[in-house]
Amino acid sequence: MKYVIVGGVAGGASSAARLRRLDEKAEIIMFEKGPHVSFSNCCLPYRLSEKIGKTESLVLMNPVQFAKQYNIQARTSSEVLSIDRDLKKVKVRNLENGQEYEETYDKLILSPGGNAIVPPIKGIENANTFIVKNVVDIAKLYHFLKENNVKKVSVLGGGFIGVEVAENLIEAGYEVSLVEAMPQILRTYDYDMVQILHKEMLDKGVQLIVGDKTVEFKDSNMILASGKVVEGEAVVMAVGVAPDSFLAKQAGLDLNARGAIKVDANYRTSDPDIYAVGDAIEVYNALTHKPFQLALAGPAQKQARAAADHIYGRPVRNSGYIGSSCIKVFDYNAASTGLTAAQCEAEGISYDIAYVIPQDKVGIMPESYPLHYKLIYEVPTGKVLGAQAISKGDAAKRIDIVATLLKFGGTVDDLRDLELCYAPPFSTAKDAGNYAGLVAGNLLQKTYRQVRVDEVRGLVESNAYIIDVREEHEFAKGHLKTAVNIPLSQIRNRLDEIPTDRPVYLHCRSAQRSYNATLALQGHGFQNIYNISGSFLGICLYEYYNDVVQNREPIVTAYNFN
Amino acid sequence: MKYVIVGGVAGGASSAARLRRLDEKAEIIMFEKGPHVSFSNCCLPYRLSEKIGKTESLVLMNPVQFAKQYNIQARTSSEVLSIDRDLKKVKVRNLENGQEYEETYDKLILSPGGNAIVPPIKGIENANTFIVKNVVDIAKLYHFLKENNVKKVSVLGGGFIGVEVAENLIEAGYEVSLVEAMPQILRTYDYDMVQILHKEMLDKGVQLIVGDKTVEFKDSNMILASGKVVEGEAVVMAVGVAPDSFLAKQAGLDLNARGAIKVDANYRTSDPDIYAVGDAIEVYNALTHKPFQLALAGPAQKQARAAADHIYGRPVRNSGYIGSSCIKVFDYNAASTGLTAAQCEAEGISYDIAYVIPQDKVGIMPESYPLHYKLIYEVPTGKVLGAQAISKGDAAKRIDIVATLLKFGGTVDDLRDLELCYAPPFSTAKDAGNYAGLVAGNLLQKTYRQVRVDEVRGLVESNAYIIDVREEHEFAKGHLKTAVNIPLSQIRNRLDEIPTDRPVYLHCRSAQRSYNATLALQGHGFQNIYNISGSFLGICLYEYYNDVVQNREPIVTAYNFN
Repeated sequence: MKYVIVGGVAGGASSAARLRRLDEKAEIIMFEKGPHVSFSNCCLPYRLSEKIGKTESLVLMNPVQFAKQYNIQARTSSEVLSIDRDLKKVKVRNLENGQEYEETYDKLILSPGGNAIVPPIKGIENANTFIVKNVVDIAKLYHFLKENNVKKVSVLGGGFIGVEVAENLIEAGYEVSLVEAMPQILRTYDYDMVQILHKEMLDKGVQLIVGDKTVEFKDSNMILASGKVVEGEAVVMAVGVAPDSFLAKQAGLDLNARGAIKVDANYRTSDPDIYAVGDAIEVYNALTHKPFQLALAGPAQKQARAAADHIYGRPVRNSGYIGSSCIKVFDYNAASTGLTAAQCEAEGISYDIAYVIPQDKVGIMPESYPLHYKLIYEVPTGKVLGAQAISKGDAAKRIDIVATLLKFGGTVDDLRDLELCYAPPFSTAKDAGNYAGLVAGNLLQKTYRQVRVDEVRGLVESNAYIIDVREEHEFAKGHLKTAVNIPLSQIRNRLDEIPTDRPVYLHCRSAQRSYNATLALQGHGFQNIYNISGSFLGICLYEYYNDVVQNREPIVTAYNFN
Repeated sequence: MKYVIVGGVAGGASSAARLRRLDEKAEIIMFEKGPHVSFSNCCLPYRLSEKIGKTESLVLMNPVQFAKQYNIQARTSSEVLSIDRDLKKVKVRNLENGQEYEETYDKLILSPGGNAIVPPIKGIENANTFIVKNVVDIAKLYHFLKENNVKKVSVLGGGFIGVEVAENLIEAGYEVSLVEAMPQILRTYDYDMVQILHKEMLDKGVQLIVGDKTVEFKDSNMILASGKVVEGEAVVMAVGVAPDSFLAKQAGLDLNARGAIKVDANYRTSDPDIYAVGDAIEVYNALTHKPFQLALAGPAQKQARAAADHIYGRPVRNSGYIGSSCIKVFDYNAASTGLTAAQCEAEGISYDIAYVIPQDKVGIMPESYPLHYKLIYEVPTGKVLGAQAISKGDAAKRIDIVATLLKFGGTVDDLRDLELCYAPPFSTAKDAGNYAGLVAGNLLQKTYRQVRVDEVRGLVESNAYIIDVREEHEFAKGHLKTAVNIPLSQIRNRLDEIPTDRPVYLHCRSAQRSYNATLALQGHGFQNIYNISGSFLGICLYEYYNDVVQNREPIVTAYNFN
């Protein structure tokens, strides 16, 4: 058997290696446009801060190693120009010498990845623009900044790459602006959760501008739709990637409306001798039950293996995808899996949320941090749909747990009952997931009712009756401007102060004491009580970024983030 | 309703709080023998190193707070002496003034915990012995060591508490010995895995003695069965805990043979008005399908809630227990869930293992460490039974994932297919669990065969044919004494050197390259090939501790631990 593989990074290299393991005798040729195969594209931004000390380190395997260790021909600087499906051959151009030649195949695997989108903004041709797609790109950017003694760099786009580039540039000592057209960065996080990261970007010195668009470049300075001018000597374009499906399209393979290659359950395209894997394909979302696109390395590797297995008649199990990811944003760790609340809204899925803020480890241990944890679940079934966690502590762990549960269609009760590892340096006896599962179960059973942090400004401005049940010394350090302070420790003796003719909203620091207060008041016959999910900590984080950047009137007397 | 609760730590305090949330009007009295309720017993050892700066920090809530915040009467220094089941009352002694009185109950919840076992060793009465069960104990130990200017401390017992105490004493600057009668510490880890922790204890200066028993004390020095003398000025007894079921026994409640209180699915004892939760009860093991005991805080809290819920007619789901735990041992993090291989052996469960050593995060990122990961699964079903991970990186995360999967009865294929969070600072695109699931699946399908690290010494001593497929420069830094070096990159050209008339064993650093070499050789017709699971890294760690402590002849020319 003779295999031709187009693309030599995550998906391509993985399918080549898997094919070799399945068939020692096969002929395997892997073409890569760029000068490197098998490099760590996810690590590229870390070169800028020199966390990765040498550009060469980014390249994990070279063609000589592929040949020696796997007997795989990895041909770099080799662009596949076209596919002849009838004759089962590809036309290839050697980009080093311009020579063109043909190579036949028994099976062809496409793993072309995505192309960085460079929008046609006025004046862009005179700006020093860079993309971050491969080793050559990052080396070019790295050296340009050094050699030109650049001070100010702009990043256009607040997705994973944009944020990681901004972080690493700050760590390298540059002045960094990041401009994102949407109202938030990182849409794998809901708007409420992402405020924590917005604040962290600000705190670490990034000039973060969301909800504004670059309309023109003057040299490398950007003019935004708002009229703001963002100065810079270099611009990193990180607005997104489009499936690199030129070849597939030219060959007449089925594509979706966004240009992604359509594949069956076994990653086979509309041509039975052509498979496709990685960022350029459309996959199945196990939660929305609809196709979607997913540009992540883990799924690409899984698809690569599955495609090779299918070629050799091994059964492939395609359980769809849920989309799990994580990112470091300076001192914060963030992770997300499944659907966001915003996605549920967009898809018309009936859902509710539980937002809890336990400590990531036992509170009295050193380096114990609040863990912001948002659980999204289906109403009325309680089926878990997704979760997001953000903390200086271990957020990825908490989300990997939910990612695992999602694969089994678990419910909030399942999450509540999980028996997780506990020791004081790592966690708490009742871990964040258990806790969120409890809250969600209570909400489903209508044990109590909640309002969300995004509703609090409205409550304050309409002078709703809000009780802050924290102790007086906590209240004194900062509180909602209109809140009444009745500590949990006094509430049973001060019932007559609490109105019965209007809704009463309770909060504390993290919503745990106010939950107890809510049940106590209900036990005393109060019927119109709401716990504010996220509580003071959540409110402060939710409000801070917009207050600061818009000079908006804060609803708190002083912020408290701990 | 009037509730009496015996015991005021994890189980007791949690049931009291839950009862209050369920019933604002109930009368709730919680008795605790010691002077504190609701302290963090898991944190006690960390006081010794002053990671917890003040003894008072260990106490999370005092009786005044219980009264004010929850309207719960927490009576400390109050020992419940007996239960009168017919009249539904308990007799209580106030340990401060000696007064005895009775208190009636509608429902009684027992959460007495365990008693530290102090074995009747000759001369123990003249030794300065300490236990670590509550805040008073740890304060006593802390002050004794300071005030007497102690230099050398011995720890008897290598369970969680013994190891955590040893670690914290070393960090506080003491000379520490730890003596464990069994051949290993921490039996939640298999013998092969725990060698990593044995080595770490040695490396950090603990005089660790396993497989030896204290037979006599001379002052606080210990004479061991081997004749060794362990010098010390104070001895921490951490040999284990026994269920504190004196009250239950006296009241005629059903106990198991080991003295643990028997409960039904709702944590109700043989008396329908008495519930029991926490370390003193027997629970159901969802993996062995037999009762067992589990002294962990997380389960205690879950049981407490369930008991309170059952009293109020709320349905309780008892899905049994799997036993998840983690521990920090100096620079290493270790975690375990489900059954160990040793438990499978003991229970006669048909199992196999996959031992993989991926990096905990992308190898080129700073602070990337090997992650030792052992998966235990049922043969032939592939049902996951347990897992253990040990690393300087995030081990607990990897095991929480398996703990989640275990609750759903997941298989090795499920583990392989998990879609986990990946970004270079946190993990790798194919995470440890995915990788172990792949290996296990291959082994079940007999894609290849393996031998384990504990078999390698026998292979070396019997002069079996072992090929080290690492590159020559790696081999030069240390290798198995009898291994032949044929790098993966040369193996296809050196097939004629490899014998066909006897078994051939392959290894590399972490078993990944040797896996590829195994399949390559099989593809060339070799039929008697075995991959050594754990490979050189695993072999070195497995052998090191015993080589050093027993002056045993190493089977390697030089150890390599990275």
